Amino acid sequence: MKQSQTKEPNWREKLHEIIYEADTPAGKAFDIVLLIVIVLSIIFVMIESIKGLDQWIYDLLFYAEWVVTILFTLEYVARIVVIRKPTRYIFSFYGIIDLLSTIPLYLSMFITGGAALFTIRALRLLRIFRILKINRYIGEGNKLMVALRDSRAKILVFLFAVVVLSLIFGTVMYIVEGAESGFTSIPISVYWCIVTLTTVGFGDIHPVTPLGQFIAAVIMIMGYGIIAVPTGIVSAEYSKISRKEILNNTQSCYNCNEKQHFNKANFCHKCGYKL
Amino acid sequence: MKQSQTKEPNWREKLHEIIYEADTPAGKAFDIVLLIVIVLSIIFVMIESIKGLDQWIYDLLFYAEWVVTILFTLEYVARIVVIRKPTRYIFSFYGIIDLLSTIPLYLSMFITGGAALFTIRALRLLRIFRILKINRYIGEGNKLMVALRDSRAKILVFLFAVVVLSLIFGTVMYIVEGAESGFTSIPISVYWCIVTLTTVGFGDIHPVTPLGQFIAAVIMIMGYGIIAVPTGIVSAEYSKISRKEILNNTQSCYNCNEKQHFNKANFCHKCGYKL
Amino acid sequence: MKQSQTKEPNWREKLHEIIYEADTPAGKAFDIVLLIVIVLSIIFVMIESIKGLDQWIYDLLFYAEWVVTILFTLEYVARIVVIRKPTRYIFSFYGIIDLLSTIPLYLSMFITGGAALFTIRALRLLRIFRILKINRYIGEGNKLMVALRDSRAKILVFLFAVVVLSLIFGTVMYIVEGAESGFTSIPISVYWCIVTLTTVGFGDIHPVTPLGQFIAAVIMIMGYGIIAVPTGIVSAEYSKISRKEILNNTQSCYNCNEKQHFNKANFCHKCGYKL
Amino acid sequence: MKQSQTKEPNWREKLHEIIYEADTPAGKAFDIVLLIVIVLSIIFVMIESIKGLDQWIYDLLFYAEWVVTILFTLEYVARIVVIRKPTRYIFSFYGIIDLLSTIPLYLSMFITGGAALFTIRALRLLRIFRILKINRYIGEGNKLMVALRDSRAKILVFLFAVVVLSLIFGTVMYIVEGAESGFTSIPISVYWCIVTLTTVGFGDIHPVTPLGQFIAAVIMIMGYGIIAVPTGIVSAEYSKISRKEILNNTQSCYNCNEKQHFNKANFCHKCGYKL
Repeated sequence: MKQSQTKEPNWREKLHEIIYEADTPAGKAFDIVLLIVIVLSIIFVMIESIKGLDQWIYDLLFYAEWVVTILFTLEYVARIVVIRKPTRYIFSFYGIIDLLSTIPLYLSMFITGGAALFTIRALRLLRIFRILKINRYIGEGNKLMVALRDSRAKILVFLFAVVVLSLIFGTVMYIVEGAESGFTSIPISVYWCIVTLTTVGFGDIHPVTPLGQFIAAVIMIMGYGIIAVPTGIVSAEYSKISRKEILNNTQSCYNCNEKQHFNKANFCHKCGYKL
Repeated sequence: MKQSQTKEPNWREKLHEIIYEADTPAGKAFDIVLLIVIVLSIIFVMIESIKGLDQWIYDLLFYAEWVVTILFTLEYVARIVVIRKPTRYIFSFYGIIDLLSTIPLYLSMFITGGAALFTIRALRLLRIFRILKINRYIGEGNKLMVALRDSRAKILVFLFAVVVLSLIFGTVMYIVEGAESGFTSIPISVYWCIVTLTTVGFGDIHPVTPLGQFIAAVIMIMGYGIIAVPTGIVSAEYSKISRKEILNNTQSCYNCNEKQHFNKANFCHKCGYKL
Repeated sequence: MKQSQTKEPNWREKLHEIIYEADTPAGKAFDIVLLIVIVLSIIFVMIESIKGLDQWIYDLLFYAEWVVTILFTLEYVARIVVIRKPTRYIFSFYGIIDLLSTIPLYLSMFITGGAALFTIRALRLLRIFRILKINRYIGEGNKLMVALRDSRAKILVFLFAVVVLSLIFGTVMYIVEGAESGFTSIPISVYWCIVTLTTVGFGDIHPVTPLGQFIAAVIMIMGYGIIAVPTGIVSAEYSKISRKEILNNTQSCYNCNEKQHFNKANFCHKCGYKL
Repeated sequence: MKQSQTKEPNWREKLHEIIYEADTPAGKAFDIVLLIVIVLSIIFVMIESIKGLDQWIYDLLFYAEWVVTILFTLEYVARIVVIRKPTRYIFSFYGIIDLLSTIPLYLSMFITGGAALFTIRALRLLRIFRILKINRYIGEGNKLMVALRDSRAKILVFLFAVVVLSLIFGTVMYIVEGAESGFTSIPISVYWCIVTLTTVGFGDIHPVTPLGQFIAAVIMIMGYGIIAVPTGIVSAEYSKISRKEILNNTQSCYNCNEKQHFNKANFCHKCGYKL
């Protein structure tokens, strides 16, 4: 970037800037075109999976799919060519995604069912966040990530509790209800218990005995109460971050370089140096 | 408003005050009458859609609908007449709503199925907030809007994640479950995945294979965890606003430079100096 | 209460203390007995509604119901006798509840279906909170009430939005799906829309057309996002109260009797008087 | 622990350290092996409950179950042997769990259906938290417990409200809908009401009459609003704890009596005086 201002960049640098960055108009355009192609290709995959359409649609999709795949292949090759250390890209997260989003069609010529891999392209959508280089988007995204990462430990504890509860209550329901009302095995009962605890409630399986329905009611109210926990955690973590934000003010101590001060602080709370 | 106190306003100003404002008794009355008519007209539309009632009810509704429509037409004309710049009203949000809530019946004389447009009148209910000129109602509404606007970026990121997850898991379920258990196409599977992630769980489609049920359980627990995110965001944003409200005020003590005061504070709580 | 310590109270005062207060052992005992009788009577009502039990159970319940009703009648009479101003009790919330929880059986001797009124006794359970005179229980209860009352305006705005959304999307679904998939009328569609927005999802009605399912998906994700709003509001309101709590310290100004001070405050922020 | 560094511990101390602690490599290894065995045994129980598998699988599971049970028996004996006061372990929570997780198989040789008790082993998973001796895990767990304990009173009040609402609305629906649409008795109606209030919505029972559907809509919106309460409570409680954590520390400045300092603060941020 920087040097590209100073001296005339060669074609590789120019391409690199277009493909890997979104600062220049060309770069933005490239990303947007890519986004459109990705979305189209996903729509194609989805339509393709629908049965009972006219044959010409499937034929059209077949050719469209080939066009998209060739475009992606070119992009993939370009990305490898213009970068200084290709290996670093190839074995990166997006490098693998890019590869996976091109090969399925080639594979599908040999093996069948490869169509599944296509939706890996959905992940390619993630790259689009590079366009959203607007500070607050990134800022929000990061803050979100931070909030989730900070509550990781708590949420693990919470999920563990959910699983243990489901195992115990699932088995109880399996014993109480039995096979005739759909609780044919413990795994099924555990599945039902998760469906109920998470308040999804498909209704494909449901208790029919009074005792079973009573236990179900207990599970539901529990699930209703439990959902409060992760929400509370995340929102608390999140507002803690916002709060930190409020506390944090730009000034840092000239003496000990401590950054975290109250806005009203006159002296560094660490070394007592005048701010 | 102001001048209408000082000198005798002409009929247009009087009408304008009645139709566009809710400060005067007449204005309030006008709004309330309007509200009642709107609610009635919506009830009529709803009843009309019910089949198997006696014919005389449909006849009654037909005439009632005409009465309502004529009333709305008069209102629409009046609004255009009394305002200084009609165009500004006509092309405003409510201007369009008002138009849309009158034409459908006229249209329905020529084309059929126009009855649908009737519920656009529901939007007219929004205008009723003008009555709720009580400060806190407006205050709350605005604060709510602010909270939502501030979390817009975050919620977009979040919804995007939901869509990507649904695309991926929808396709996985389509492959795992297949057509015989209702996952007839990827779009359907994605639809099911959204139904499950959002913990709605209709049960019209549900996994039957053990693997499918296991993945479903994972999706549900994920959805259960994911719902924590927007809630956390909004409540954090919201409480941030409230917090600001409580403490932040611009004045600071001239004596001890203490910045944190209640809005109602007259003296510095630290040194007792007059603020 | 107070005087009953000083001079010997007469029987009415004694009874009043037992019936209307829970400070004395006798009063507590009375409340607990009452609680048990109420819970039993509700269980009786519930069992009674179950069909296909042995006749002797119904007979038993019939007599049990009479015993309970007579007990409640005695209590009702006692409450009227011992109180100084009977009218104030009779027309109070609990006075009406008490009456309603005795008459149904007497009524049921003449008219049928009066059994419904029985569960009004459930409301009697509310009186049991008098036992929970433990400060924090009451404290919490009040704080909860305050939180809800403070967010009343906001929650009204929110519920209004939900209703408007349901009306609009309900009609849209009615047009899109039509009768063959259960959306037989606009009211039914609105009902379905509420079922979906609130993530209940019975599945008795569900979209079958692709467009209908797409709109349903939009509604669900909206509902998923909307649920964040009231939660955010309540938790923000609630934590605002807690925060106030933290700010509030016991000291009040000798000069102007201002009660709300920072814990660190040395001077009244209202009159500048030394605390 | 401590002394085991200083002087050579005997075999009992060594074993005690391995079995009861997770600080030493041996201790960690023991816990991990135990964890694996527990998870396996639970998987065995679940598979066993599935019908229609080949006979050899059931045979295999039978032997596997015996191996697991013998391992648990050995562990149980070892725990009793190496501890100084066996009674304290035997009658501890985990002591009983350990016993219950060994006897079922022995019992199942005499009585049938004992297989149910097996999942009590799920509780054994809780012991695994001893591995997660990483401070923040424990810290989070404790904080979570504190948050829940602090909101216990409030959540009881809330659950009580839910039950009362379910009783009342359940009976109302029983009267409105009646037996033909599945509301065959008040308990069933109450069960349905809980299913609806908690937004689970199985759909096994659902209203069919217009009035019933209207009441159902009211219940749903109520449930939708109610869920905000516990969430709000927990997140408020939780963030209160975090807030305390961040700011509250006991030290105050000797010079300016400023009370609000970071825990890491060495100097008063207001006057720069050494704390």
